[in-house]
Amino acid sequence: MEVRVLRRVLEKNDRAADEVRELLSAHGVRAINLLGGAGCGKTALLERLLPILRPALRCGVLEGDLATTLDAERIAAIGVPVTQLLTEGGCHLTAPHVRRALDSLPLDKRDLVISENVGNPICPANFDLGEHARLAALSVAEGADKPQKYPLLFKDAAGVVITKLDLLPHVSFDLHRVTLDLGRLNPAARLFLTSAERGHGLAGLAAWFRGMARGNDDATGPRGGRAILN
Amino acid sequence: MEVRVLRRVLEKNDRAADEVRELLSAHGVRAINLLGGAGCGKTALLERLLPILRPALRCGVLEGDLATTLDAERIAAIGVPVTQLLTEGGCHLTAPHVRRALDSLPLDKRDLVISENVGNPICPANFDLGEHARLAALSVAEGADKPQKYPLLFKDAAGVVITKLDLLPHVSFDLHRVTLDLGRLNPAARLFLTSAERGHGLAGLAAWFRGMARGNDDATGPRGGRAILN
Repeated sequence: MEVRVLRRVLEKNDRAADEVRELLSAHGVRAINLLGGAGCGKTALLERLLPILRPALRCGVLEGDLATTLDAERIAAIGVPVTQLLTEGGCHLTAPHVRRALDSLPLDKRDLVISENVGNPICPANFDLGEHARLAALSVAEGADKPQKYPLLFKDAAGVVITKLDLLPHVSFDLHRVTLDLGRLNPAARLFLTSAERGHGLAGLAAWFRGMARGNDDATGPRGGRAILN
Repeated sequence: MEVRVLRRVLEKNDRAADEVRELLSAHGVRAINLLGGAGCGKTALLERLLPILRPALRCGVLEGDLATTLDAERIAAIGVPVTQLLTEGGCHLTAPHVRRALDSLPLDKRDLVISENVGNPICPANFDLGEHARLAALSVAEGADKPQKYPLLFKDAAGVVITKLDLLPHVSFDLHRVTLDLGRLNPAARLFLTSAERGHGLAGLAAWFRGMARGNDDATGPRGGRAILN
């Protein structure tokens, strides 16, 4: 019975995800689902990235959280249309959340919608939000064992962004191991090394976002691991 | 129907949690549930803490993860009995996991069982594992907004441990804000400031573990926030 209910939840989610895709397609808008653990720096990355993408790329943001509108306030402060989605205890965004929120964004004036998922390296990966690509974030402070320990987060991602690279001198983080593990887990993923604090690696990531917004799934960026291994 | 199934899952969990408590009680063993996001430093904390607690306190550890036995190997390396619990995609430990695993620990030779939950600041908080106390971990790298954004993690914790304090000079983390928010959310919680890397704050935390093992719920340690605010 539990399995049957789970299947029904997922079916309901998938129907809404299809609706999201149809609605976005009707407006020529693309969507990215940004996932990662709590405090891995997703919002800080968007705060630095969105001004680089503008004005060529008109972005809208959906912020997923259990509580507070703190993240939406940070995005609104840089002048980007944003809607806060509160899951009220829920550990991930769902496609129905996104479907309802799209009515609040001026879709005919957007090129790209970025959904920042709830900070959780597990559950969000199980739910299709109608996105065209997933971007998984991992901070160097979280540790190099995370691709092995949380494979779901990384295995379907079109891009993986390593964040907080400025902390590298102060933490024990084996970048070589991470790139090897990501290469095994998801060899097609593009890998980006960034520091929102220092503004490092943002140009390459911005180029990938631009490619994604053009519907180019083979967007600019080194393939998983290879950029570092070669 | 979904609500009914969820209720049934929780009821099943609570029955197993009661069994865990009875089994522990029969052996005079106490249990702590250690929760926190992925990469917040739970295992590193145990690696430093367990040798301090030994030999006065005979600990056993259950390591919850989606995949790999990496964490159990780290605990085994310091000579503490440990069992790895793999959730196979599940985002949290459950009481049935713990109930089964207790058979693998020599309970008649243990004083305290520590369950390190799956790295996830949300779902684990909803499941009673039959523990006597919860310890919630938050690293300074995750950011000071986390008590507000993930209240479930902190509101039922007997203790809150701030980890990776050695990173404080390198990150933007408002400790004053965290202590105020924790004080509002859970004024009875004891607060510990630690760095496993530097060995800071471990003596105070060890005293709290010893108190917990003695069944003293009013164990040593400053109350949430006040230690810093006064």
